[in-house]
Amino acid sequence: MAKEIVLTGVTTTGTPHLGNYVGAIRPAIEASRQENTESYFFLADYHALIKCQDPERVKQSRLEIAATWLACGLDTDKATFYRQSDIPEIAELNWLLTCVTSKGLMNRAHAYKGALDANLENEQDPDFGITMGLFCYPVLMAADILAFNAHKVPVGRDQIQHIEMARDIAGRFNHLFGEHFVLPEAVVGEEGSILKGLDGRKMSKSYNNTIPLFDTEKKLQKGINKIKTNLLEPGEAKDPNDSTVFEIYQAFATPEQTAQMRQKFAEGIAWGEAKKELFALVNGQLSEPREKYLELMANPAHVEEILQAGAEKARARARIMISNLRSAVGLVNFK
Amino acid sequence: MAKEIVLTGVTTTGTPHLGNYVGAIRPAIEASRQENTESYFFLADYHALIKCQDPERVKQSRLEIAATWLACGLDTDKATFYRQSDIPEIAELNWLLTCVTSKGLMNRAHAYKGALDANLENEQDPDFGITMGLFCYPVLMAADILAFNAHKVPVGRDQIQHIEMARDIAGRFNHLFGEHFVLPEAVVGEEGSILKGLDGRKMSKSYNNTIPLFDTEKKLQKGINKIKTNLLEPGEAKDPNDSTVFEIYQAFATPEQTAQMRQKFAEGIAWGEAKKELFALVNGQLSEPREKYLELMANPAHVEEILQAGAEKARARARIMISNLRSAVGLVNFK
Repeated sequence: MAKEIVLTGVTTTGTPHLGNYVGAIRPAIEASRQENTESYFFLADYHALIKCQDPERVKQSRLEIAATWLACGLDTDKATFYRQSDIPEIAELNWLLTCVTSKGLMNRAHAYKGALDANLENEQDPDFGITMGLFCYPVLMAADILAFNAHKVPVGRDQIQHIEMARDIAGRFNHLFGEHFVLPEAVVGEEGSILKGLDGRKMSKSYNNTIPLFDTEKKLQKGINKIKTNLLEPGEAKDPNDSTVFEIYQAFATPEQTAQMRQKFAEGIAWGEAKKELFALVNGQLSEPREKYLELMANPAHVEEILQAGAEKARARARIMISNLRSAVGLVNFK
Repeated sequence: MAKEIVLTGVTTTGTPHLGNYVGAIRPAIEASRQENTESYFFLADYHALIKCQDPERVKQSRLEIAATWLACGLDTDKATFYRQSDIPEIAELNWLLTCVTSKGLMNRAHAYKGALDANLENEQDPDFGITMGLFCYPVLMAADILAFNAHKVPVGRDQIQHIEMARDIAGRFNHLFGEHFVLPEAVVGEEGSILKGLDGRKMSKSYNNTIPLFDTEKKLQKGINKIKTNLLEPGEAKDPNDSTVFEIYQAFATPEQTAQMRQKFAEGIAWGEAKKELFALVNGQLSEPREKYLELMANPAHVEEILQAGAEKARARARIMISNLRSAVGLVNFK
């Protein structure tokens, strides 16, 4: 039986934080170990260019994210790990799909509509400050997925619409030129996998409330110490269900450890003590990959080698796909 | 002194006709012989996909147009002659430019606005039937031009806006990432170079009023015989300025021949006679290239070879360009 293809992309504008690790990196790497799946992981650096016009940031983020995934145990013999921008077939497919995508479909994209509504609210021109990158982004995302005929795409809720659009575009192409594409499905992670940040909101770069994943031990400790808590004194019972400290602890703990910590909360553990235990737990799990991460960051040429090998693997497949699609639309060599 | 780069693209959906020859092919080939210019000619087959979803048509048209340009004397040692879809760097540049193009600019494109207005008139949804291909087309055209930093782009009046958009996009990129692009200029041909068709309107596939360039001698004759004339009898003076027969004659004649024909019109040449002379003139000039054309059409593998060599030449330049641009936006290999 053919394996199920699962595809995951990470936009390369930020530095990975604990929320990324718990919500995306760890589950994706675990899933990639399953026997019946073939995993594609890519650094979405073309997508990064939509919102980031700082070349140094793009550069640094690509390296940091690549090193993070490798340090966290991604097995690149099993999974295919590559940079989007190393696969010219994706840019080409992007154009083939652009030609069959109806503009009305893009008009309905949430990200675009959000920007539009904000402009209208501010009594600006509706398209003020909106680039074609933002507007065309769902087509490129469809190309990312369809280039490998991925069956499943793990995404956050805000991305479900994009997968639906990819299905729509794939269906349109199939209708016009024959059944070339599998219709991909979105796989939405559990709600529990979204970690809260320092201020109790979802941990996210845009809220500036993140705890870095692979900074120094000291910075991890400092981050954990900054987590907002309430004013309950030591000895007063604390509600684990309303505590970011507990939530992050749970995300790293075994069920037994979690049960013990729940007990300690009931018994009124001091916040300082709880944070110490949180740090010990998290740091214990991260110190080995952190070391690996620092090694990789110190040896970018090695990361490059791994990514080049991944690109070759990915392109071997994408080339066949694009060659078939070119024939289908009439772009064939003369003989 | 660096040579001036002139770039010409031909959308591969049709079969070349006399109007294409007089208005585009002949002047472009003549211009490419100038010492101080470096000419790029390409078959715009990515563009063809916007309006043509018939793979056989695209396929056939690519071959016919390639054979036509070669048969008409394009010197591929001097000029660079290639298919757009053989240059993956163009598709990649298309995305880099997409990220810096404002959506408002595309909203103002004539072709898009024309389709929009037609929908509004028919009380349809404004974007009914409009594809992203139509909407994004000016960005791809900018990529065609900017990939080679062309200085001059010979176009019809309806395309001037697209060159202005390419300038705008190039300027935006330069502003953000440094001076990478020359701002291209439109070169608009003389009004006289637009040939009239069988019905007296501009000769164009969309009016179904064309005379094929390299069909058989018989079909050329038949085409010429179908040119609409007025009811003036032999012996009655005819107005050369109001005659498609005269206009086409002039497009192929020397000034002396034209003066003689003008005299004959004044003397009341019969329409049948005038058409006979027109056929003799045109056929005389086309019979040699027609033979070459038929040879090339019978040997597609040879045309393919020429185009592959052209693609290599074009890519050698485009690769350097895209490599610089990738560095500029932050897509560089780790070392």
